Amino acid sequence: MHHYPDAMIRLIKNLCRLPGIGEKSAERLAMHMLSAPGAEIHALARSIDELKKQVRVCATCFSLSDDTICRICGNPERNRALACVVEGPDDLAAIEKSGSFNGVYHVLQGLLSPMDGIGPADIRIRELIDRVGEKTIKEVIIATGTSVEGEATAGFLIKKLKLFPVRITRIASGIPMGGELKYADQVTLKKALDARHVL
Amino acid sequence: MHHYPDAMIRLIKNLCRLPGIGEKSAERLAMHMLSAPGAEIHALARSIDELKKQVRVCATCFSLSDDTICRICGNPERNRALACVVEGPDDLAAIEKSGSFNGVYHVLQGLLSPMDGIGPADIRIRELIDRVGEKTIKEVIIATGTSVEGEATAGFLIKKLKLFPVRITRIASGIPMGGELKYADQVTLKKALDARHVL
Repeated sequence: MHHYPDAMIRLIKNLCRLPGIGEKSAERLAMHMLSAPGAEIHALARSIDELKKQVRVCATCFSLSDDTICRICGNPERNRALACVVEGPDDLAAIEKSGSFNGVYHVLQGLLSPMDGIGPADIRIRELIDRVGEKTIKEVIIATGTSVEGEATAGFLIKKLKLFPVRITRIASGIPMGGELKYADQVTLKKALDARHVL
Repeated sequence: MHHYPDAMIRLIKNLCRLPGIGEKSAERLAMHMLSAPGAEIHALARSIDELKKQVRVCATCFSLSDDTICRICGNPERNRALACVVEGPDDLAAIEKSGSFNGVYHVLQGLLSPMDGIGPADIRIRELIDRVGEKTIKEVIIATGTSVEGEATAGFLIKKLKLFPVRITRIASGIPMGGELKYADQVTLKKALDARHVL
């Protein structure tokens, strides 16, 4: 890279730190930024710089927010009796995109992982228990992933939530839509068979 | 995307304008930037903003430069009698990476393309002729690509340069190293056969 100007090398190095961007893509991006309209590139730099300053965390559900309370928690059309517990804001985004959920969320901001030293106090479990204790929530859908950590976190939450008069459910696991049985792993197949339903 | 904070949506939209970055990758990048160290993200924004301000074009070869004259043109170790003509700075970068060239360059900043209204006056052909006229250059290697435009530009340059006492060469085309004959197109195969050499 020594044949590029210093400013170009600096940019390429900074771009390389981003996930999924190697030196080749970083070079291509830098080359594009050099020839793209100045206003467009300045807007990009500004939006990167302002992200951390402007994005907050919702005081109720801990998802990303413009304000103290996020748009979902503040929306009177959403069903506050139904709370879906997810690991992070990207899981929330995925569910919102599916358009199949009209309740509210609780973002744990992580999963229990003793191996990485992440215990119940490190994620938003206390806050979930407090919300359930307020009695507005009638059903908690535990929608953590089906990894070891996701399952362990779900197990822990179930144990804690059983102490409250609330319905506790877990999202279904099984064969992904469009997926072929022969490519499914054994655990998924077992889950899918156990959870079979009458037609 | 309406469930993301405004600052996040703005960033995602700006990232989507970059080549090869779709909404999914933009989301992932924005999510990363939100959790990455502030200093790192600020440095990225700064380097994007400073790129256009700091990168200049070499007055001799028209490649990217920190200064009036680029590092290659200003390097006394490089052979100024040998000039390699390329389309853009990324082609120069590719040749430099190969480590197999010790001459200087001439960056055309484009290729002739009548379809797109790009004629000889729109790229740095005049400046190449002027350089050759100064008589330091003894050989011009035409290293434009082998696309229609690359070949047309090479043809045009050959015609113009023939008027000067300079050796004119064209980079070889043929089967790429590691490539299989059965996957090569007919034009490439013909070129490779025509350019065969005795062992």
